[in-house]
Amino acid sequence: MSAQRIYLAGPEVFLPNMAEVQEAKKTLVREYGLVPVTPGDADAADFPTSHEKGMAISARDETLMDSSDAIIANLTPYRGIAADTGTCFELGYMSAQGKPAFAYSNEAKNHHDRVLEYYGGKVQRDAKGLPRGPDGLLVEDFDMIDNLMLQGGIERRGGAVVAGHAAADAMFSNLAAFTEIVKIAAAKLL
Amino acid sequence: MSAQRIYLAGPEVFLPNMAEVQEAKKTLVREYGLVPVTPGDADAADFPTSHEKGMAISARDETLMDSSDAIIANLTPYRGIAADTGTCFELGYMSAQGKPAFAYSNEAKNHHDRVLEYYGGKVQRDAKGLPRGPDGLLVEDFDMIDNLMLQGGIERRGGAVVAGHAAADAMFSNLAAFTEIVKIAAAKLL
Repeated sequence: MSAQRIYLAGPEVFLPNMAEVQEAKKTLVREYGLVPVTPGDADAADFPTSHEKGMAISARDETLMDSSDAIIANLTPYRGIAADTGTCFELGYMSAQGKPAFAYSNEAKNHHDRVLEYYGGKVQRDAKGLPRGPDGLLVEDFDMIDNLMLQGGIERRGGAVVAGHAAADAMFSNLAAFTEIVKIAAAKLL
Repeated sequence: MSAQRIYLAGPEVFLPNMAEVQEAKKTLVREYGLVPVTPGDADAADFPTSHEKGMAISARDETLMDSSDAIIANLTPYRGIAADTGTCFELGYMSAQGKPAFAYSNEAKNHHDRVLEYYGGKVQRDAKGLPRGPDGLLVEDFDMIDNLMLQGGIERRGGAVVAGHAAADAMFSNLAAFTEIVKIAAAKLL
């Protein structure tokens, strides 16, 4: 079998130590016999506007995904209680291509628990018995790491999801859950 | 040309008046000559666990997307400053199939402005001159509605994004921006 290229999606691109974290992830992926592919920044100097730069990064990252065989998505909650939206787009993009998808989160609390926390426990049953927040929104509970389209898309393609439990100050540096999912991905792909 | 089926992605499925809002959206889509396709809940009684129910909804919504010709995604911020993660997955899913994608938001403030607000204005330049929040995360500014993968994926496929300005209590009921994007989608697709 030819080398298996794994696209590493996640909000690492926004970290101050992006290069260091991505290198650490790439090293781990290589140790398990897979070829890491990481998204990245396009050179700002080449684009007259920030919008065009964003378009160019989008094009490049899609091309990188097209050339990859599988995806590992970092779904650790990002600036709130849910995964990074760009990472979710990428997970859907790879799933539509029928490629094996894997994900992890460094947050132990699942989607339901995070939503309950978001509402400060102020969840009440409606007339139909459905739990809703003070804003009326349904507090869905599918025993999943995030929205059901993400974990459903992964598991229905034979992939897996790992939930770790990193300290608050190591949410984007702890690689324990990532290491575990790389092992699982390697076992499935190689 | 055969009927154009439009998948209407968005967090409407979590609203207390889901059926009413979805019916209003479907009516509008039909008025412009397109065929609306909406995600929905699977019957809970058929599944022994909530996890299995979630998997079934995921399967059904993917099938609905596979049978659709284009997508209109509601990227209005959901429980925080970013779009619903399931909607983002769906946008990536349809983009990977090369289908025309369109989106709207009822929030006038773009991604950059929402992130600045999230940090309460406490954004500082790092040694390289890049703006970062107190948590060190990059405050990206691509003049887009949300993460660049979303808007980039849409615009690079000839789609469009409309930002409305609904009142806080009408974020998920105001259909002005939706109406505008339906018009644009119909003009492109028919």
